[in-house]
Amino acid sequence: MTASITPISATVDFDKEGIQHGHLVLPHSHDESAWGSIMIPVCVVKNGSGPTVLMTGANHGDEYEGPVALWDLARTIDPKQVSGRVIIVPAMNYPAFRAGRRTSPIDGGNMNRSFPGNSDGGPTAKIAHYFMSALLPLADIVVDLHSGGRTLDFLPFAAAHILPNQAQEKACVEAMMAFCAPYAVMLLELDAVSTYDTAAESLGKIFVTTELSGGGTSSAETARIAKRGVTNLLRHAGVLPGAVEGPQSQRLDMPDGRCYTPAQAPGLVEWMKDLGDEVKAGEVIARVHDVERTGTVPVDHVAGVDGLFMGRHFPGIVQFGDTLGVIGVTVD
Amino acid sequence: MTASITPISATVDFDKEGIQHGHLVLPHSHDESAWGSIMIPVCVVKNGSGPTVLMTGANHGDEYEGPVALWDLARTIDPKQVSGRVIIVPAMNYPAFRAGRRTSPIDGGNMNRSFPGNSDGGPTAKIAHYFMSALLPLADIVVDLHSGGRTLDFLPFAAAHILPNQAQEKACVEAMMAFCAPYAVMLLELDAVSTYDTAAESLGKIFVTTELSGGGTSSAETARIAKRGVTNLLRHAGVLPGAVEGPQSQRLDMPDGRCYTPAQAPGLVEWMKDLGDEVKAGEVIARVHDVERTGTVPVDHVAGVDGLFMGRHFPGIVQFGDTLGVIGVTVD
Amino acid sequence: MTASITPISATVDFDKEGIQHGHLVLPHSHDESAWGSIMIPVCVVKNGSGPTVLMTGANHGDEYEGPVALWDLARTIDPKQVSGRVIIVPAMNYPAFRAGRRTSPIDGGNMNRSFPGNSDGGPTAKIAHYFMSALLPLADIVVDLHSGGRTLDFLPFAAAHILPNQAQEKACVEAMMAFCAPYAVMLLELDAVSTYDTAAESLGKIFVTTELSGGGTSSAETARIAKRGVTNLLRHAGVLPGAVEGPQSQRLDMPDGRCYTPAQAPGLVEWMKDLGDEVKAGEVIARVHDVERTGTVPVDHVAGVDGLFMGRHFPGIVQFGDTLGVIGVTVD
Amino acid sequence: MTASITPISATVDFDKEGIQHGHLVLPHSHDESAWGSIMIPVCVVKNGSGPTVLMTGANHGDEYEGPVALWDLARTIDPKQVSGRVIIVPAMNYPAFRAGRRTSPIDGGNMNRSFPGNSDGGPTAKIAHYFMSALLPLADIVVDLHSGGRTLDFLPFAAAHILPNQAQEKACVEAMMAFCAPYAVMLLELDAVSTYDTAAESLGKIFVTTELSGGGTSSAETARIAKRGVTNLLRHAGVLPGAVEGPQSQRLDMPDGRCYTPAQAPGLVEWMKDLGDEVKAGEVIARVHDVERTGTVPVDHVAGVDGLFMGRHFPGIVQFGDTLGVIGVTVD
Amino acid sequence: MTASITPISATVDFDKEGIQHGHLVLPHSHDESAWGSIMIPVCVVKNGSGPTVLMTGANHGDEYEGPVALWDLARTIDPKQVSGRVIIVPAMNYPAFRAGRRTSPIDGGNMNRSFPGNSDGGPTAKIAHYFMSALLPLADIVVDLHSGGRTLDFLPFAAAHILPNQAQEKACVEAMMAFCAPYAVMLLELDAVSTYDTAAESLGKIFVTTELSGGGTSSAETARIAKRGVTNLLRHAGVLPGAVEGPQSQRLDMPDGRCYTPAQAPGLVEWMKDLGDEVKAGEVIARVHDVERTGTVPVDHVAGVDGLFMGRHFPGIVQFGDTLGVIGVTVD
Amino acid sequence: MTASITPISATVDFDKEGIQHGHLVLPHSHDESAWGSIMIPVCVVKNGSGPTVLMTGANHGDEYEGPVALWDLARTIDPKQVSGRVIIVPAMNYPAFRAGRRTSPIDGGNMNRSFPGNSDGGPTAKIAHYFMSALLPLADIVVDLHSGGRTLDFLPFAAAHILPNQAQEKACVEAMMAFCAPYAVMLLELDAVSTYDTAAESLGKIFVTTELSGGGTSSAETARIAKRGVTNLLRHAGVLPGAVEGPQSQRLDMPDGRCYTPAQAPGLVEWMKDLGDEVKAGEVIARVHDVERTGTVPVDHVAGVDGLFMGRHFPGIVQFGDTLGVIGVTVD
Repeated sequence: MTASITPISATVDFDKEGIQHGHLVLPHSHDESAWGSIMIPVCVVKNGSGPTVLMTGANHGDEYEGPVALWDLARTIDPKQVSGRVIIVPAMNYPAFRAGRRTSPIDGGNMNRSFPGNSDGGPTAKIAHYFMSALLPLADIVVDLHSGGRTLDFLPFAAAHILPNQAQEKACVEAMMAFCAPYAVMLLELDAVSTYDTAAESLGKIFVTTELSGGGTSSAETARIAKRGVTNLLRHAGVLPGAVEGPQSQRLDMPDGRCYTPAQAPGLVEWMKDLGDEVKAGEVIARVHDVERTGTVPVDHVAGVDGLFMGRHFPGIVQFGDTLGVIGVTVD
Repeated sequence: MTASITPISATVDFDKEGIQHGHLVLPHSHDESAWGSIMIPVCVVKNGSGPTVLMTGANHGDEYEGPVALWDLARTIDPKQVSGRVIIVPAMNYPAFRAGRRTSPIDGGNMNRSFPGNSDGGPTAKIAHYFMSALLPLADIVVDLHSGGRTLDFLPFAAAHILPNQAQEKACVEAMMAFCAPYAVMLLELDAVSTYDTAAESLGKIFVTTELSGGGTSSAETARIAKRGVTNLLRHAGVLPGAVEGPQSQRLDMPDGRCYTPAQAPGLVEWMKDLGDEVKAGEVIARVHDVERTGTVPVDHVAGVDGLFMGRHFPGIVQFGDTLGVIGVTVD
Repeated sequence: MTASITPISATVDFDKEGIQHGHLVLPHSHDESAWGSIMIPVCVVKNGSGPTVLMTGANHGDEYEGPVALWDLARTIDPKQVSGRVIIVPAMNYPAFRAGRRTSPIDGGNMNRSFPGNSDGGPTAKIAHYFMSALLPLADIVVDLHSGGRTLDFLPFAAAHILPNQAQEKACVEAMMAFCAPYAVMLLELDAVSTYDTAAESLGKIFVTTELSGGGTSSAETARIAKRGVTNLLRHAGVLPGAVEGPQSQRLDMPDGRCYTPAQAPGLVEWMKDLGDEVKAGEVIARVHDVERTGTVPVDHVAGVDGLFMGRHFPGIVQFGDTLGVIGVTVD
Repeated sequence: MTASITPISATVDFDKEGIQHGHLVLPHSHDESAWGSIMIPVCVVKNGSGPTVLMTGANHGDEYEGPVALWDLARTIDPKQVSGRVIIVPAMNYPAFRAGRRTSPIDGGNMNRSFPGNSDGGPTAKIAHYFMSALLPLADIVVDLHSGGRTLDFLPFAAAHILPNQAQEKACVEAMMAFCAPYAVMLLELDAVSTYDTAAESLGKIFVTTELSGGGTSSAETARIAKRGVTNLLRHAGVLPGAVEGPQSQRLDMPDGRCYTPAQAPGLVEWMKDLGDEVKAGEVIARVHDVERTGTVPVDHVAGVDGLFMGRHFPGIVQFGDTLGVIGVTVD
Repeated sequence: MTASITPISATVDFDKEGIQHGHLVLPHSHDESAWGSIMIPVCVVKNGSGPTVLMTGANHGDEYEGPVALWDLARTIDPKQVSGRVIIVPAMNYPAFRAGRRTSPIDGGNMNRSFPGNSDGGPTAKIAHYFMSALLPLADIVVDLHSGGRTLDFLPFAAAHILPNQAQEKACVEAMMAFCAPYAVMLLELDAVSTYDTAAESLGKIFVTTELSGGGTSSAETARIAKRGVTNLLRHAGVLPGAVEGPQSQRLDMPDGRCYTPAQAPGLVEWMKDLGDEVKAGEVIARVHDVERTGTVPVDHVAGVDGLFMGRHFPGIVQFGDTLGVIGVTVD
Repeated sequence: MTASITPISATVDFDKEGIQHGHLVLPHSHDESAWGSIMIPVCVVKNGSGPTVLMTGANHGDEYEGPVALWDLARTIDPKQVSGRVIIVPAMNYPAFRAGRRTSPIDGGNMNRSFPGNSDGGPTAKIAHYFMSALLPLADIVVDLHSGGRTLDFLPFAAAHILPNQAQEKACVEAMMAFCAPYAVMLLELDAVSTYDTAAESLGKIFVTTELSGGGTSSAETARIAKRGVTNLLRHAGVLPGAVEGPQSQRLDMPDGRCYTPAQAPGLVEWMKDLGDEVKAGEVIARVHDVERTGTVPVDHVAGVDGLFMGRHFPGIVQFGDTLGVIGVTVD
């Protein structure tokens, strides 16, 4: 179904030199406006020859380091310094971003489960289809900035995937390391179907993603990591001059499902460890209390492997089956 | 209206020796259960003679350090160590707590704007009325553990208020310092009408409150501060044996409205300072970006006084009129 | 506040001879109609001299035996047979009745917790105020037909209350017995504040109420009980000719709180007894299963007294604190 | 689309001897939990050789006899008595069951209109796909326990369908009779597309379904029918020892569309017949009253055939086009 | 309750010379922002000596001629031309205005049924209280611009009320005529309790209101009427120089309840007359069709008096009890 | 997917002589009625030989001239005058029509983006599929009456499309002119995929559509245009006797995208031009004011071409990206 024509049009010309600030216009006929549109901000900077880097934030609408770094980049980038092209879509699932939600309030769409999209579906599917058919083909390097959102929190890391094409994987790993996030993770995603990652990689692109903290907010510190990372990637690609700057990322690995500690009961979470703490397999990372009465024994949840506590459920209450904690194994 | 009889009954006997885990039973007739009840957990520990300490969490339902510390206290306290009485209501606005919301999903009630309550009102008003008429009269010392909730974040502090009765104020300040939070703040609340604080203080009680981080979550570190604080207060009161333990709190002051930086525009927040940073008056603490387009100039928001960045808006998006940042003035 | 003037007007003249079908017109300005009205059906039948009987259904909007019997009565009553006056409001909380809900979808009002009402409140309070100030003063005998609604189920019974005025109580009991429901219960309501019952009784009226099955439906059998009951009451009052017809009601008593079995846990209800079963104190009436997993031991709930299983929670799932079962003690 | 790989994993091993209580884990990323799961209880009992019986309840989430009987079976079955295997999923559309609704609150899915399912759809489609691809292939006999739910009520019956394969149909009829429900109905479903029934039958399975009362509740009596039925089917299959016990089911037939009486108008239902009553064609089974005014003539609804009143609309209010009543023709 | 202190503060100084654009800041603590505010735009223009005119729009949030004229006035008024003071609050029920609804989405408040307000109530009550205690006392002349909103439509008119104080009434009538709307109506409001009108008049103010079309929109023509009217009133008051300009308003009268035609049935409205048409008593102004079937006879609705069709229900569907049409009697 | 069998059945026989009023019965199993139906009114009139005209309204549920004209036609048409057949479905998206919304409240479906439909989809897709597979094949001439709905307003016009088949296009234009609306527009739709128009035209039908005012209401005048138009089309088709009556339509053209003026900012609309006004390219048609503060400069929106102001956004508030105005170029 992805072969059909997108209803989305851009108010910018991707082939024009200089910097343009415009919108991806997605017609949206709904009860509150029969002839309305979703106006997705886009910025394109083009100068001279060089590769194209496509940068996105708010693939999930409640993740903010990406939008902050990209709104800042779009405002401050000097087109004369550019060699090649930068396409910035700072809020990819724009309806979700406006609502401050992971998914679109219009169609419930989780953008990262919507690829390759559909020109005849809801707004989320139409945006995915537009990236698949119009933007990804323009790009050499693709950067998609995630954070944990309102319900997860992470140590800040950049990530790449194990790929069948070793040359592509190597290029991705190099780009991941060029981001200079505090941590770098080689992700073996358990559920990679329909993601933007897989879509971009299947088209042969160099793809880097991140998780840069979470909780549905950002901070000066995590925004600095994001801003430094996007600049570093543009330097790494040769689109901006100069050398990559920043610390060497600490490598973490997630060898198997024991890295994940799922909640065994619903309740109030009493954390025994914080992100960044070293933990041993079998050590209690959190207790879950029955919220209906006091005086009962909480359910202990333990680490499945030795490593660094790198990700956790964010809200104070957890449901049975939620991922409660994630442990990353330190790689020398 | 507060003189009328409460419909709430307790399944515990507040005059009985030993530890009891039970509920405050609030009859609630609604569409899903004509003869239903709201079952609010309560724990009472009584032994020998001594003062009564009343401890509460989740006055706002999305603040978690209080519930974590009090569920833990109710489970681990040794009645034989007690001299006097401890009454623990770990989730005061229980419907809000179950919903993970600041206010009650049943009646929209903000517990801390509902005092002195009303025996004939909604559930929030009925709970406030029960505290006013049944629990506060039993107490000598009252501790109400707040955090920032889903939409605010704070440096962890204990607080007391300036009171007309200087002896009462002095006792409150001593209790605040005994909590041994990293920070201690003498609050001059701008809107103290209808709060639990004012209700308790008006009855002559020693009252301590806190703000212990925020964002609608907790951490091992902030839970430790809360647990230590409630134990310290029981020691300070002589209800538990032993001396108060922990660091000397750093005093902060909020002399006037310049401590508050309200948002001048809606948009995406780019933080330039983090909690705990020292700031100078006029220094930019955050920029707010127009979310409808890139390439525009963000609105800078500056500190109004020299001091420590002690509180901030938490979600990534801010609305015009929200409190964006709070600066505390360091007291030597 | 009840002294102020009602905004409700009637399209019928309560003093006119003959039968009139009309409405109580309650102006209601809302987002969907700035100048709208709630049109509450009313029927008045007047002929010759005699007492006034005021009959109501759908005090709770999901209770149907009352509306069925009263819609039928209004359609079939022969004014020439009447001596006195019958005022029929078959759906008292009309917005709740239209929504099929216990409470009003407009203001959340539970009509039977809204007396004496308020001419300046929401629609529920305004209706209560109109009954208090306009209809009850016209009546000698007041009949309010309840059933269990969507969340409760009962053996069909008529009821009266213990009253300080013994003559009034005796008249109420006689009216209750004249209803000829299968059962008759002398209710000692635990929460009688703000009820229509108390409002009517405080004005010295002869008041009869019922519970005639439940579940948010009715049946041919329970509708027959209701129709027979309202006709019997009109005969008993002398408003219709002829003698009361039907069986002698079995008397049940509810001596104290042990009659009620509250749910100790949320979950799936496995009933071990049905309405009408004889039970012994300590006998299991229902088990509640944890819905999150199989293989666990359900929580047994037992009868608190010897008697007849006369009322129960209706939906298949129960919440902690809901009234699960009610036992009535047989009176010889 | 059904060939793709399910995201659902089971925490039980269907090939392991003995009894296991676990979950079908369905990853569900949503606004309230980015990395959450739907945890569907499952119990598997395996011992020795013999057929596999797959038993389900809450295909529609507001039907309770199935869950009650299967939670009880999972708790009480003795693995040593088993010859073969029993797979119990007591709440098939688990999100609907938790919500007490016919359909899923997450995606609106009606499980019994969702087959063969889709591994890439919403949770309802994913569960259907898992039954189609993983559980049905394991089964020889399939039992799906339905009741009327919140909006329908039935005489308790087991049912089978007319099938193109006469041997399969005969085996289904024998299983239906082995259930020993008070009634047995040979269903000629008017809309059998996308049902679980058709899916199971198309795979050649022996399939039995039921309707065991309704209204969104259960009773001790109907739970006994369900418990007896599932035990009888296990005996009939040879999975449990012993002979089938219980009464001979009364056979009912539904020859054509005249068995159904659709509502001709919206309004308040006055039932003239109850379930189990014998009715003649043309006899009034229910009247529907205009709820906007009294004194009008209700719309009479009549039986289309002679028979037993076997099914009806449950709520007190009906909409134009709802099925109001169902008549079954007695088969000698 | 109106004596207590408002929580609202203004960022403008009402006593300062010149023009100021600012806000009424109403603290609003809610689930999405614990320390949020409602920011109500206000403009004050003061120069020299002269009376104070208080002008408001969006008392109901879906009425637009007022906001359009007042936003325009605030932008274009020349302070040097002013003699006295103009206070402009172009969107009085600001939350309702932002939502495009008649009433507040926060508390359901209808501003024009909320006076004298309450400093301790919801936002609507607090705004009413602020007008009552802070703004009305500053004013000599009060202009409140209404239109029909989403559910009503009117011929454009200015209005005054019959008042006990004849001098006050005369001044109001003169101000009404100075507005120079196409029509002028002497309103005998049936439900004047709790209105802003009554509140202002009870304080002895000269008060003019309007209805300037409707439907939840505005047009160039109706905006011109509103702009001309507010300028004319400032001229009439002597606050702006120059003479009142515009046509002599046609006077209409509403002698009694026969002016109103309420809908006798719900359904689809087929209009037989349009606003501005002359009608005779008994003439059909609209037919209402049963929307559930074709071929039935619609319910005719007739005019109750001879006059001009001056007001009507706006949406295409009407409910039983809605005001369908309003006839004004022409006054020579 | 459109080849599968529809679940919709008709209670009318399309081949029977005379007039029949009935329903399209669409089974709809949902939480409030497990065995419910959507009952879509249909009227068929057949007499003698002649073409079949299929007439529809409420393709969008908030557009009322079509339903008014067709309910009136169905009630007043004289079958004896007919030569051929008229099929009237006055409310095509019936759930949307009952809700007064553009789209279906059940599945969110926009009927005019749902063709060719799907027999296995939601109700909107099923209705589209029924028109595609059952009704359109019966028709020679298809008339679909639109108006602007709640969010758009238009000068009243009939319309046809440029088609590849010139003979078909000519027949459509002749039918458009026969409607005798005040205006006639040759539409070059920018987004014609999935519309009913395209579906009908692709089957070779003569197709006429309209836009007859808007705002979610109708008037006597616009209803007269609609009634005259449908009668004229039946005369034009030879189904009713007599000649077409009415004015010659003024032709308007929409040559390219400059006819549309999209909103560049959200805010309050101050209209500078009204529908029917002549405008010049560059002339301001509307200003949009920032609703958060007064005293700012509104955003001017200008006409892109010389012409007649023929369409506009209706609600008083506009969002960025909404179509604000439409200019038609006058054709001599």
